[in-house]
Amino acid sequence: MITRQEQENARRRAAEMIRAAGIHITAKEADGIEVVDFGLSRLAQEGVQVLTLVQTERISVKALALFPDQTEPEHWHPPVGADPGKEETIRVASGTVYFYIPGENTFKEGALVKGKEHCYTVRHELVLRPGDQITLAPGVKHWFQARAEGAVMYSFSTIARDVMDQFTDKNIVRITKIDEEK
Amino acid sequence: MITRQEQENARRRAAEMIRAAGIHITAKEADGIEVVDFGLSRLAQEGVQVLTLVQTERISVKALALFPDQTEPEHWHPPVGADPGKEETIRVASGTVYFYIPGENTFKEGALVKGKEHCYTVRHELVLRPGDQITLAPGVKHWFQARAEGAVMYSFSTIARDVMDQFTDKNIVRITKIDEEK
Repeated sequence: MITRQEQENARRRAAEMIRAAGIHITAKEADGIEVVDFGLSRLAQEGVQVLTLVQTERISVKALALFPDQTEPEHWHPPVGADPGKEETIRVASGTVYFYIPGENTFKEGALVKGKEHCYTVRHELVLRPGDQITLAPGVKHWFQARAEGAVMYSFSTIARDVMDQFTDKNIVRITKIDEEK
Repeated sequence: MITRQEQENARRRAAEMIRAAGIHITAKEADGIEVVDFGLSRLAQEGVQVLTLVQTERISVKALALFPDQTEPEHWHPPVGADPGKEETIRVASGTVYFYIPGENTFKEGALVKGKEHCYTVRHELVLRPGDQITLAPGVKHWFQARAEGAVMYSFSTIARDVMDQFTDKNIVRITKIDEEK
């Protein structure tokens, strides 16, 4: 859960980062940025800001903003009906992204979320900079993180059904709730 | 047909435009920019420069650069086997794009290619600026053009099979030949 004020602040900050990364976005798009705390109520540590540019029945394009030291939790995109699952290419637009996939443990430059080490099981490290990209087949576990400078990425994919995503951390709820009392 | 020199010059110019539009591309990507004359041998009038960022069996992402007063000829994306055809979203990154689709003839700001008027049959005009986008269902005829300032666009789509594209101008050949004699 986040407060309306947290949501507004994160939206504004993410819009500035996305624009600074060279991506022209409209005022309406900026107002629609999704601030995702994964139901964990610690947005600064585990969260992501998502601007959906294209969403059709066949493809999805998003700009993702990670604040400094913010981590998108480990997850994967399962099959849904006749769809083998979301295939996704992450391409860095600004900053450095510490990206983790299955394979030999080469964890070095990133920082595991304290007390949550068991929720980050894949540790083959890729350090991605602007212009670098990785394509993930459906079902491949992954998580990623920005360090001091934050980062902006594109996500190019087949149809996105975010609520169907699977997370290693079973406490995660994909839909962020807003605390209207504060 | 274009000469190797024309290809090299167009590649370099397109890479500069794409970078100036805020899109980070690698040197290898810049070297792979496709310079397309549609077999018409008049690249400055009818042509496009294409940088493929993502190409999988399911989706395609490209950056398209149009030089000033260059026109991408009228075409459409037909069904291919079980695929209903390419669904494409064009989003402007820099410059102004004069975009034409079926519908009421509202042609006003663009310029028809002289002597080729019969090859440009859809004339419902959209004037698209950075951050503007249009999603085209498979099979919808379209063409587009840049005027004085040139333009850079993203093309986000389902799997691209460019050689299957259909053109109103039956003289068009999608694969550009290089004249190695000059």
